[in-house]
Amino acid sequence: MEFYNTSVIQSWERFYRANFINSLTGFKSVSLVGTADESGNENLGIFSSIVHIGSDPALVGYINRPRMAAPHTLANIESNGIYTINHIQPSFLEQAHQTSAKYPPEISEFESVGLTPEYHENIKAPFVKESNVKYALSLKEIIPISHNDTFLVIGKIEVVQLGGNFVSPDGFIDLNKAGSICSNGIDSYYATSSIGRYEYAKPGKKPQKIN
Amino acid sequence: MEFYNTSVIQSWERFYRANFINSLTGFKSVSLVGTADESGNENLGIFSSIVHIGSDPALVGYINRPRMAAPHTLANIESNGIYTINHIQPSFLEQAHQTSAKYPPEISEFESVGLTPEYHENIKAPFVKESNVKYALSLKEIIPISHNDTFLVIGKIEVVQLGGNFVSPDGFIDLNKAGSICSNGIDSYYATSSIGRYEYAKPGKKPQKIN
Repeated sequence: MEFYNTSVIQSWERFYRANFINSLTGFKSVSLVGTADESGNENLGIFSSIVHIGSDPALVGYINRPRMAAPHTLANIESNGIYTINHIQPSFLEQAHQTSAKYPPEISEFESVGLTPEYHENIKAPFVKESNVKYALSLKEIIPISHNDTFLVIGKIEVVQLGGNFVSPDGFIDLNKAGSICSNGIDSYYATSSIGRYEYAKPGKKPQKIN
Repeated sequence: MEFYNTSVIQSWERFYRANFINSLTGFKSVSLVGTADESGNENLGIFSSIVHIGSDPALVGYINRPRMAAPHTLANIESNGIYTINHIQPSFLEQAHQTSAKYPPEISEFESVGLTPEYHENIKAPFVKESNVKYALSLKEIIPISHNDTFLVIGKIEVVQLGGNFVSPDGFIDLNKAGSICSNGIDSYYATSSIGRYEYAKPGKKPQKIN
């Protein structure tokens, strides 16, 4: 067993600590967030800190870094009120990772990395055409997190697009079928394989797999 | 391409919608949250909405359901100020899933499902002995999310325990080596396999894999 306490963690070099802490929290639903400013200039960024908040209403959150570190996505969401979240498949992972490079605001990451913007009626934010699982959100609230100047950005799901028949009879989306990947830490990406689904648990009853 | 808009989603039966929306956000870092009340009564619950907030200070958040739906974990964290998060390996997945059954507050899920509480000096919350990757957090803030009565619970990492040598030379924790799993939706669990790590991205430079 290896132990690390606060003072050990605090003593580490900055990048070592970032790698360690970022990977400690586990696998993440890495996705591309698509936005546009009021003139229609497009922005695309890779985000991994996406979190399910509720199903009814359908609310999704993500953590946005401090304004100085990642200004374009947040500014576009604030001015436009709408944004898209797009899953990543291995076929365009290199392009997705490359969106994390620091491009000037007038440069579209779509064009720079080689991904295709796609629009849906009434949604003034670009989807990623190549993505098999994508959804648009209307901004509900931006909650500042005072401890480190980050933000919890909460949106309501407005429209969902799936690139095939990935939905099981009970509503569950089979992300293995869709080819969605996940991430860990700052820079590591993973494919997944299903272990199984388990029935709703009840006290005194052994967990049963859903076949 | 299949489209679903707000009114379609709203028209669905409750469990169908919950399965769909919960799986739409992608793979999640499913973990067991260990707490104790002031008398030392232990509680263990499975949570999937864990989110990295920052590395310096090392902050982790998770979404807690409304108080009526999931009262024990939140009440224990509020009264005790400390809690643990424990990754899940396939070897004890059934037990981990079973903690989601609605046990009365005086019943320890550890005992009911067959997992072993473990204590570390000065941490008044139980770790899961069987877990290979686990950490304790001190409560920093509970932020209410008004839209659906959930909460973002933010904690600072106080101590980390790893069950083996999973840390790469640059600080990255190899969760494949540790055997940590991830989840999707309400009830589906996954093993992962590495696609690769990519170097820090720069404009005009093709993404390079870290060997």
